[in-house]
Amino acid sequence: MNTFGNIYRLTTFGESHGAAVGGVIDGCPPRVDIDFEALRMMMDRRRPGQSPVVTPRSESDEVVFLSGVVDDTVTTGTPIAFTIANTNMRSTDYSQLAQAFRPSHADYTYQMKYGIRDYRGGGRSSARETAARVVGGAIAKQILASEGICVEAYTLRIGRVAVGGDFVPRCGDNAVYCPDEAAAQAMIGEIEQARSEGDTLGGIVGCTVKGCPAGLGEPIYTKLSAMLASAMMSINAAKGFDYGMGFAGAAARGSEVIDPFDCDADGEIVTTANNSGGIQGGISNGNDIYMRVAFKPVATMMRPLTSVDTDGRRVTIPPRGRHDVCVVPRAVVVVEAMAAMVILDALMMARATGV
Amino acid sequence: MNTFGNIYRLTTFGESHGAAVGGVIDGCPPRVDIDFEALRMMMDRRRPGQSPVVTPRSESDEVVFLSGVVDDTVTTGTPIAFTIANTNMRSTDYSQLAQAFRPSHADYTYQMKYGIRDYRGGGRSSARETAARVVGGAIAKQILASEGICVEAYTLRIGRVAVGGDFVPRCGDNAVYCPDEAAAQAMIGEIEQARSEGDTLGGIVGCTVKGCPAGLGEPIYTKLSAMLASAMMSINAAKGFDYGMGFAGAAARGSEVIDPFDCDADGEIVTTANNSGGIQGGISNGNDIYMRVAFKPVATMMRPLTSVDTDGRRVTIPPRGRHDVCVVPRAVVVVEAMAAMVILDALMMARATGV
Amino acid sequence: MNTFGNIYRLTTFGESHGAAVGGVIDGCPPRVDIDFEALRMMMDRRRPGQSPVVTPRSESDEVVFLSGVVDDTVTTGTPIAFTIANTNMRSTDYSQLAQAFRPSHADYTYQMKYGIRDYRGGGRSSARETAARVVGGAIAKQILASEGICVEAYTLRIGRVAVGGDFVPRCGDNAVYCPDEAAAQAMIGEIEQARSEGDTLGGIVGCTVKGCPAGLGEPIYTKLSAMLASAMMSINAAKGFDYGMGFAGAAARGSEVIDPFDCDADGEIVTTANNSGGIQGGISNGNDIYMRVAFKPVATMMRPLTSVDTDGRRVTIPPRGRHDVCVVPRAVVVVEAMAAMVILDALMMARATGV
Amino acid sequence: MNTFGNIYRLTTFGESHGAAVGGVIDGCPPRVDIDFEALRMMMDRRRPGQSPVVTPRSESDEVVFLSGVVDDTVTTGTPIAFTIANTNMRSTDYSQLAQAFRPSHADYTYQMKYGIRDYRGGGRSSARETAARVVGGAIAKQILASEGICVEAYTLRIGRVAVGGDFVPRCGDNAVYCPDEAAAQAMIGEIEQARSEGDTLGGIVGCTVKGCPAGLGEPIYTKLSAMLASAMMSINAAKGFDYGMGFAGAAARGSEVIDPFDCDADGEIVTTANNSGGIQGGISNGNDIYMRVAFKPVATMMRPLTSVDTDGRRVTIPPRGRHDVCVVPRAVVVVEAMAAMVILDALMMARATGV
Repeated sequence: MNTFGNIYRLTTFGESHGAAVGGVIDGCPPRVDIDFEALRMMMDRRRPGQSPVVTPRSESDEVVFLSGVVDDTVTTGTPIAFTIANTNMRSTDYSQLAQAFRPSHADYTYQMKYGIRDYRGGGRSSARETAARVVGGAIAKQILASEGICVEAYTLRIGRVAVGGDFVPRCGDNAVYCPDEAAAQAMIGEIEQARSEGDTLGGIVGCTVKGCPAGLGEPIYTKLSAMLASAMMSINAAKGFDYGMGFAGAAARGSEVIDPFDCDADGEIVTTANNSGGIQGGISNGNDIYMRVAFKPVATMMRPLTSVDTDGRRVTIPPRGRHDVCVVPRAVVVVEAMAAMVILDALMMARATGV
Repeated sequence: MNTFGNIYRLTTFGESHGAAVGGVIDGCPPRVDIDFEALRMMMDRRRPGQSPVVTPRSESDEVVFLSGVVDDTVTTGTPIAFTIANTNMRSTDYSQLAQAFRPSHADYTYQMKYGIRDYRGGGRSSARETAARVVGGAIAKQILASEGICVEAYTLRIGRVAVGGDFVPRCGDNAVYCPDEAAAQAMIGEIEQARSEGDTLGGIVGCTVKGCPAGLGEPIYTKLSAMLASAMMSINAAKGFDYGMGFAGAAARGSEVIDPFDCDADGEIVTTANNSGGIQGGISNGNDIYMRVAFKPVATMMRPLTSVDTDGRRVTIPPRGRHDVCVVPRAVVVVEAMAAMVILDALMMARATGV
Repeated sequence: MNTFGNIYRLTTFGESHGAAVGGVIDGCPPRVDIDFEALRMMMDRRRPGQSPVVTPRSESDEVVFLSGVVDDTVTTGTPIAFTIANTNMRSTDYSQLAQAFRPSHADYTYQMKYGIRDYRGGGRSSARETAARVVGGAIAKQILASEGICVEAYTLRIGRVAVGGDFVPRCGDNAVYCPDEAAAQAMIGEIEQARSEGDTLGGIVGCTVKGCPAGLGEPIYTKLSAMLASAMMSINAAKGFDYGMGFAGAAARGSEVIDPFDCDADGEIVTTANNSGGIQGGISNGNDIYMRVAFKPVATMMRPLTSVDTDGRRVTIPPRGRHDVCVVPRAVVVVEAMAAMVILDALMMARATGV
Repeated sequence: MNTFGNIYRLTTFGESHGAAVGGVIDGCPPRVDIDFEALRMMMDRRRPGQSPVVTPRSESDEVVFLSGVVDDTVTTGTPIAFTIANTNMRSTDYSQLAQAFRPSHADYTYQMKYGIRDYRGGGRSSARETAARVVGGAIAKQILASEGICVEAYTLRIGRVAVGGDFVPRCGDNAVYCPDEAAAQAMIGEIEQARSEGDTLGGIVGCTVKGCPAGLGEPIYTKLSAMLASAMMSINAAKGFDYGMGFAGAAARGSEVIDPFDCDADGEIVTTANNSGGIQGGISNGNDIYMRVAFKPVATMMRPLTSVDTDGRRVTIPPRGRHDVCVVPRAVVVVEAMAAMVILDALMMARATGV
């Protein structure tokens, strides 16, 4: 439910307009010396107000740790609890939404499921919850780095603009975290145009895991691919996941996409292609793992929308201006965080069986 | 690992060339009068040898129940164990594969993970395991039907042939289970052509859930969409999942894909579009749930393949003739089974919290 | 690990000398109007400094809620996070313990398990963690009460003083929460005597659940008795659990302890005895559930103790004066909280299967 | 529910009078060379008809393996499924019980929970299910043995006869598996006397784990003691669990039961007593782990019993002669099996966190 993972587990809590969001990381290995500056830099990549392409709301997203570390930096193996205060709440913004269901949001489904909801800013369904994921992912990334495993996400598409076919899969040093600088500028233009039209955009985030050892993923129902898919589809606004050739491979012929084995100069077994995306039979094979996550366009728009309220009366939802035009720039680091937690969890599971 | 689900749980076992595959269904409600004839018909849709477009291997796939039912038909709430004997094993076929790693199969990853593997026919990684899923799904489907929920999968693409834009989402009465009869014939031709070329094909399976009540799916990490994604990506050869507008929505604008609320003539709240695919914020909203699953081309080919063995020596894997050219026709019912188990599981989870 | 329960789940965090202890309740039903005054009264029963028989340390144990409730009182079905600040920490008290292993504490085992530990006040292994359990249990108790189920714990033994054979199983209105007033006074005397001798005491807590419907508990491995046993044995210093006739029944004959069925005046099936303790075959039968939990004497003493440090050198641990002589008075409400969470969890699990 | 364990997991199925009982072991490490003869010997210790003190029913309890092993002996890391056919079923014996509730059995509670039950021989609640546990435990024991860990259970009490204070904790070579030969003979006499009186007996089983490394058990809610308690209380007829000083320690003083640390001649940290029973703070400390499990007297008697049927009518249940007078002799190996599975599971969990 609100807990993610099997061994390395993150439980999150909090609504966008409550006192705080936060989480508890259980199963974190002991004696990890956390690099809080690196954690802060990951948080900054998700933070609102970081650049012109994201929501102008500004929140510091300071992470306060309550437990699980001694001497301020070293993990003890006990649960790491943390909170992130909600400092930029304009609940008055939301009072008019108390009864109205915003289209394509979770308002209606939460109301139907629970018979009650915290309507302020989406409550629990707000993307603000993902701040807690970045904390869990940042620590996971650091542990993975110490094992030579690198997880990196990046933008592949925003609206109609996609990266070209030939790019290095890494997080670009631009406002949209796109590896292709020319595409990045076009994506920024796409966002500006949509904003000027009062419209919103979707997009696709890619993620690559390098240095992952062979053998991660537990057949049959905890395949590494199934763990990654579940993790990614739990992110707000995610609508699709694929890895390796993915959907494109569905139209290909086997002879085109098979990954032949060979031996390299050192006698190591290698594949001469990686259409499988680093996972075969649900288990990592040592090649780079790469995947894509599709996000829908933001449903909150800078245009008035007609809807209904809880009594079924038609209402007009006024335009709102402090939202992202596209979630992708801020979702990149969330994808990276989720991937890091999955890979670490799979690594720990593999160690459990001593294989 | 080898258990799927939270409340309605299926544990499967068995290798393709062992004595049997099978499973244990735990959490099945009591007093369900199982329709074994309907179960048999679902099994037949997965069965090898059922039509010219699938592998000519022939297995009866008879399901023997060992526990959990009384008077031969009624569930008692205790675990339902069943076995499906492996009757058509030509292990001699596989002896030459004892040391060779077939490209793009799970041979290498199982060997790396476990240091040992049952090389006969893929062992545990064989798609034969999915027979057990169909049993679990068939019973889930019957329980869902009694609540007015219908789950139906169908073929959307085989190789280069896809259904047209305008089709009724249902399981077609043709060898490829495609809802579009013209496309079905083209798909059959596509399979025949690939077979004649010694090549293989991938494809896309769609699945629609009708009659699903609003409120299923547990935020945040057990969203209905995350459960479905994990279930689908656990199927052999699955490489991608999306729902609603999915990947296509990533290039759309918000104004195009929003699902406006309205009231129907009875005063019921409805949406005038269903781009969300029946799930918003990870929770079902009462609309039809629809999703797609991408499958890669079969990696076993009717051509000789070069590879390496466990000692890193180059070997040639001879062409093999008893395999499917495309997994899609037989995967349709597996997708349907997995979707049914997820929906039932989510329904039972929702009841646990009394919401 | 640090999460308890299946549907109604409590995740706790915090060390005794960190910023705070706290927890996250997941799976709490929505629309529960929490009685915070009743919660406060339960917290007071565990609070240090509440009476002369417990540790003179004084902590207010104020519970701050961060999420999961709206309008300050009503649950929304989303995670309820809360913190309890640690306000009475004398870490200087503990500096001398940085390297020494206190006998019969968790110092050595945490060091061996994690290679690091928060030595201040027991760190994570401190009984302070049970404050978070009382929060989870208090809310569970309120939900159960609305279904007519009452959970009540009480003291059966402190050191050599036990209740007489004939008592009403309820929480006594005295400092040791003993149902037998005469025994209570003797228990208080027993504590005073042990304190004057610099020694400590163990004891036994009883707990009774009234109004529990038949049918709770999931065979085979999630029997209600197994759930209760696990819950109780997770409490600090707990060394034994039994229910019904328990250990005493091991010496009895079947003809003495069988619970005959009969029909009452209304034609309802009843039993004419309840030696089973309300659970048969691991499932509640509608009778009162009663159980016992044994606690060892406190290992921290007001006498100097010889021990070793992490380097294996012999050290003397000086006497310490702010600890409980006996955990039982403060453990009563913890037993009650754990029992309440188990019963609610079992109730929700039973609803999941619709039985 | 019907699955036990976290990493090393056993799922069982089957009713006493169905086709078979059996199980699926998931998470078993690969490359274990199973000693099937040792497994058979463990099965024989649970088998009915093995000696005059147990039920004269005779079943061979042959274990048939369906998956998870290659070359007939070596595990592959995939699920190990097995069945044990029910060969000695006299269902006609039970027809008269179709409607009657046997006192102190699970008949009534299963009926109340599920609204249906397999009344033949207790159905799923039959102790026959424990045969599957012995298979899981036998394999776990073999893996533990290869790590130098030995798990051994033995009888401490049958009815009024208990072992003396001074005994070596091991499984005695006598019909009741008691370490004290004199007590064993008295226990056999106790059973014969009870049988002659048409009555039944309870008892206590002890279990000791030697060679267990320090560091097993996951705080807070998966303490090793909590795992053991849950495992033991899941066994049919178990009514109590304690470890170390257990219930006896509740009446002791701290100064009597503390386990002082010291250094041995090799400079290793040791304790000079083991009242803690090898577990401190829920984590193993390297000392012997010892525990006790209380069993109630068998509820099926060789005397007519009055009861009621499902319609609430008074009925007489005739005496039955093929049951055990006391479950303890056959429960010894079940306790051993459960302890072995818990220790292995805890070992694998500890490895997951790399501690």
